[in-house]
Amino acid sequence: MTKSLNDLMKWRYATKKMDPARAVDQDKVEQILEAVRLAPTSSGTQPFEVLVVTNDELRAQIRPVAWDQAQITEGSHLLVFAAWDNYTAERIDAVVEQLVSERGDLPMLRDYYENLKANYLPRDAQVNYEHAARQAYIALGFAMLAAAELEVDCTPMEGFDPDKVDEILGLRDMGLRSVILLPLGYRQADADWLLNMPKSRKSREALIKDLA
Amino acid sequence: MTKSLNDLMKWRYATKKMDPARAVDQDKVEQILEAVRLAPTSSGTQPFEVLVVTNDELRAQIRPVAWDQAQITEGSHLLVFAAWDNYTAERIDAVVEQLVSERGDLPMLRDYYENLKANYLPRDAQVNYEHAARQAYIALGFAMLAAAELEVDCTPMEGFDPDKVDEILGLRDMGLRSVILLPLGYRQADADWLLNMPKSRKSREALIKDLA
Repeated sequence: MTKSLNDLMKWRYATKKMDPARAVDQDKVEQILEAVRLAPTSSGTQPFEVLVVTNDELRAQIRPVAWDQAQITEGSHLLVFAAWDNYTAERIDAVVEQLVSERGDLPMLRDYYENLKANYLPRDAQVNYEHAARQAYIALGFAMLAAAELEVDCTPMEGFDPDKVDEILGLRDMGLRSVILLPLGYRQADADWLLNMPKSRKSREALIKDLA
Repeated sequence: MTKSLNDLMKWRYATKKMDPARAVDQDKVEQILEAVRLAPTSSGTQPFEVLVVTNDELRAQIRPVAWDQAQITEGSHLLVFAAWDNYTAERIDAVVEQLVSERGDLPMLRDYYENLKANYLPRDAQVNYEHAARQAYIALGFAMLAAAELEVDCTPMEGFDPDKVDEILGLRDMGLRSVILLPLGYRQADADWLLNMPKSRKSREALIKDLA
């Protein structure tokens, strides 16, 4: 690509109006999902799944429990980031088995994850869910940049009723809880009030402190 | 740049051994901090600060409360992502005032943030802190990719005692709580056991579900 990361960061914005007539090609969606897959997570557990909802009926059910945000149905793909509802021995053991198969059966590796289980498993499910949800935000950011690289628009959304989305998609039965929505689509430039607004960010001075 | 985002994602890894003899140039650190600054956050509140610790004494104090991870002192810069301990009217009003100054005094904008305050301010501080901390993970991911673009290494770390780091840096008095550490430096290739291990990620099938 010829664009720098800084270009991508400045190009993207939380698209308010998507063009319902333009769908994102599936190969571009796959590249965005690959960024999700490659995103790092704490101890490599990747403690979330992403649901790719193209089903019109499901998206029509989600929209009213998400402040009626039109991008949910006017985009072509709705990514739902859903975190593990808890860490379990089975889930962590599956991570270990994959690592062993790819990197060899290193004692250090098994010790690390036994320690991790001793730390995570006694904790409240809510604490573990919160921890898992944080990891999904790294992948969310990667997905947003991957979309920008492909000139695909997206809109990260926390404004929805997670219990209702869990119910619509049957997430609780899968041991998952919805964290964030990310519709993908293309901006409808003549109808998006945010597009031409300047990007607003705090100054370096307000955000960064140097301790030299 | 000539590298794709996918290249950057594959290049980076959680560097285990940094070369204490190589410091990251300040202009590269600034580019990494600019990625933090440009990262999107929920409702644009940017509810965290980043401390850039180069002070040797502070880093020497942090290392033992962070599982003695050597990158903290062997890297040249330690970024500490610290989230707001709570949302307050003052903090949100400051966001609104900046938006008004940059985008004009739109009634829609003021209504949006009055609504946000009505939603956030009655919540427990812990709920608000957790929400703020999640946003920091987006910026963390952006920083990791910005470092990779500059061929700077980094190591995201959750393994530390946040109360002790808060105390060492005086974060609580600043209304902040430490969330994650990110030492910056350069890999010492001949001494890093992880460098030549294959990157391990779940398959698309394990991580992604299509609801068509």
